[in-house]
Amino acid sequence: MPLLATLGQSGPIYLQIRDRLRHAIGNGEIVAGTRLPSSRALAADLGLSRSTVVAAYDQLIAEGYAQSRPGAGIFACDAGPMTGPMTGPVKEPTIGANPNGAPGSAPAGRSEPPLALSPGLADLTLFPVRSWARTIGRVARSEPETLHHCPDRFGDPLLRLQIARHLLAWRGVRCDAAQVVITGGSGEALERALELTCDAGATVGLEDPGYPPIRRFAQARPWGLRWLGIDENGAVVPRGRPAPRAVVLTPSHQFPLGGAMAQARRAAFLDWARRTGGWLIEDDFDSEFRYAGRPIPALAALEGGDRVIYVGSFSKVFSHGLRLGYMVLPAPLVDPARRAMHREAPRVSVTGQRPLARFMEDGSYQRHLRRVRRVYARRHGLLMRALEAHLAGRAHWRRDNAGMLVAVHLSEGVGDRQIAAAARRAGIGCLPLSDHVAGPGRANGLLLGFCATPDHRIAEAVRALRLALQEAGQPVGGGDSGG
Amino acid sequence: MPLLATLGQSGPIYLQIRDRLRHAIGNGEIVAGTRLPSSRALAADLGLSRSTVVAAYDQLIAEGYAQSRPGAGIFACDAGPMTGPMTGPVKEPTIGANPNGAPGSAPAGRSEPPLALSPGLADLTLFPVRSWARTIGRVARSEPETLHHCPDRFGDPLLRLQIARHLLAWRGVRCDAAQVVITGGSGEALERALELTCDAGATVGLEDPGYPPIRRFAQARPWGLRWLGIDENGAVVPRGRPAPRAVVLTPSHQFPLGGAMAQARRAAFLDWARRTGGWLIEDDFDSEFRYAGRPIPALAALEGGDRVIYVGSFSKVFSHGLRLGYMVLPAPLVDPARRAMHREAPRVSVTGQRPLARFMEDGSYQRHLRRVRRVYARRHGLLMRALEAHLAGRAHWRRDNAGMLVAVHLSEGVGDRQIAAAARRAGIGCLPLSDHVAGPGRANGLLLGFCATPDHRIAEAVRALRLALQEAGQPVGGGDSGG
Repeated sequence: MPLLATLGQSGPIYLQIRDRLRHAIGNGEIVAGTRLPSSRALAADLGLSRSTVVAAYDQLIAEGYAQSRPGAGIFACDAGPMTGPMTGPVKEPTIGANPNGAPGSAPAGRSEPPLALSPGLADLTLFPVRSWARTIGRVARSEPETLHHCPDRFGDPLLRLQIARHLLAWRGVRCDAAQVVITGGSGEALERALELTCDAGATVGLEDPGYPPIRRFAQARPWGLRWLGIDENGAVVPRGRPAPRAVVLTPSHQFPLGGAMAQARRAAFLDWARRTGGWLIEDDFDSEFRYAGRPIPALAALEGGDRVIYVGSFSKVFSHGLRLGYMVLPAPLVDPARRAMHREAPRVSVTGQRPLARFMEDGSYQRHLRRVRRVYARRHGLLMRALEAHLAGRAHWRRDNAGMLVAVHLSEGVGDRQIAAAARRAGIGCLPLSDHVAGPGRANGLLLGFCATPDHRIAEAVRALRLALQEAGQPVGGGDSGG
Repeated sequence: MPLLATLGQSGPIYLQIRDRLRHAIGNGEIVAGTRLPSSRALAADLGLSRSTVVAAYDQLIAEGYAQSRPGAGIFACDAGPMTGPMTGPVKEPTIGANPNGAPGSAPAGRSEPPLALSPGLADLTLFPVRSWARTIGRVARSEPETLHHCPDRFGDPLLRLQIARHLLAWRGVRCDAAQVVITGGSGEALERALELTCDAGATVGLEDPGYPPIRRFAQARPWGLRWLGIDENGAVVPRGRPAPRAVVLTPSHQFPLGGAMAQARRAAFLDWARRTGGWLIEDDFDSEFRYAGRPIPALAALEGGDRVIYVGSFSKVFSHGLRLGYMVLPAPLVDPARRAMHREAPRVSVTGQRPLARFMEDGSYQRHLRRVRRVYARRHGLLMRALEAHLAGRAHWRRDNAGMLVAVHLSEGVGDRQIAAAARRAGIGCLPLSDHVAGPGRANGLLLGFCATPDHRIAEAVRALRLALQEAGQPVGGGDSGG
């Protein structure tokens, strides 16, 4: 390999070796699958220390140009087209595959394509990679200082303004940018909202079934917990003493059972908050995804909504990787939140904030939402038809026309954890409903996602799920197939 | 104002109004300080709804082109040169001022220039805004998918590789990229390291005085706490039962007292970890800043360092706004950490990770570190001379030649909280040492930063501090001026 002749000009030697090999792999000089010379042999050839060659190989592996197979050696990968010796591979996102998949994945090889019907996953292939990157590039040129610093602990003022506008247009929530706090995902928002409203010894109300991370967070704090059961109208208003200082609710779409909270129940919660001085923390995690019917107004948009801390997320609807969410604070909580956040290290990166604000400002974000919603609506319909065809009589579920997952209730018999494990072996990533129950309630069912499963795999995955149910000995239950 | 004639072509109306006004303010057509027409008057002029004009004004305020003075109206700001109607103002970073300061700051007006001698602050004016933005722009063109998604929960493989290289070169720590976990600042790393090693009921050892956020975090968990006092050799090895499962240490530079842990004490901690099976969590928060003498090797670089979880940060040395830190896990903790992180929502944004990896790869990061270190070394020297000139005999302090702050010990008398409050009124942002004490120990002193205070303000700030001490009635103490 005539490497030596081209080395020796500039930059660290290991990067020069990396560049040369990357180029050779990129242009096909070294064919994918070829075993690279051992680091010892190449080091001897080039008269370099072995550690230099090992460093170059590590780099190639991290960048996805080579792969280490323990015991066998290091092999060239298919790296796609090249743009030049000093830039990374341009990877075209491909439908149905992780856009940052195999070649770019971790050296540890931990990245796997998502299992079919995994709940909670957005379809990464729909992410507007190019327009997002263009927006970031534009901000880097015209507002570079916003990419490393934000003087306001509540987050970028422009992003907060765009969020306030978005909430008015999409959710009917009327607020000022000064009330909006940018957080590291909606999880941080829920945590901060609880910390802000609950002192040690306070009681916190959580829906049950509910979102396990916020349950674990609250359990690790010095708070009493009250489980709010879910009936056909939504979460049940807490009674008795001590009254919770705050309750976390998912009124637009109960997580994980689905269904919107009935109008009368909403009014009852707002009345409860007014009477007790408690706070309602509204986790509006997937309300952008409603595929039919009228939008459900947010609790924060109703009369009495000044007792509501509204929490939203960009993770589900836009990008998990950005780790951006937000909360809208009622006016009396703004100053206490500033004081509390002043005492703590910030937990949210500024780098994506101004680009996201510009992305919302020029309408790209809203276009993306509408596009994704069309795809998810279609997949929701495909899942409904497949469930009807293959699981009617064995299970029942709601026809919500909303959200990113469907809770399928199983009749008593084999437990949902066992069935989820069997399904996983068959490539189905559903989650057991019972993992989402904390209090005295019981549940036996499976949470099925549909957003990140390509259209043509949905029916096939539901068929595989039926087989898993049969093999696990799940009897033909007595439940109806509706809800 | 001939606005109407130019409106009506494309985009939302409020953005068109914003563009027109922004342009007029940018090119001096509307002079800074001019009161803009009331939203009611402008709306009537243009035949638009008032809310549209309010939206345009909000946007101008958020972007720093206008300022709201309650009760007086909205006024045009001095917005600097324009690059075009659809891009934001180009703000040249100015030395000695917050680069994202007044015009770009929050509508809430909460951004203030840092007080002199505030500890814990880096000098934002030294941040390499342009080369960082160029790097992000390059990544946006050549590896756009890395700006929204990372398939590995431990973080970008290339950044982890660069961190492993950096640690070997700068800190003597030998590790594999697979052991490196990217976190949202070093705070998250410390929290995760504790959660990973300590079950409910475990005992945790924390230095006292120490870092208040990690103390508050640990106090809110179901753990027993053991305070490790600090003597002239550093933190004291815990004795007695139950042995802590983990201790958090700052061996390179004790926070906040300063001073490096003695060699024998390091060996004693490593021996303690080996004997008890406990873990050492090494918070190496500012070790890049050592202005004289030999670098202190990291605990993780020593024999027995396989009991050490090494924690590093980019916040102090690079950018607070990126919210990036990391930990290096001993091999046996890698799989447990993967399992734990798989159960939780990620807390770290991907957007800055690949750009930072490229910034490290091409040497820009290291150049930045060396440049900043030169400036901080000079300011450290200026602070030492000013303390000698103005506070000798009233206080004593270490001559560490390291870190980002100096602990100045006061003799008994007026409490440090009272003095810090008086100093704050005089524009000095020092913090009381006693706020950093949790256990039975006592301390009376002030923490002074020097990194973010311009050279010419340091001596003047120390003089003002002496006045604050005199006014608060601090007697001429018996302490020596050395350490």
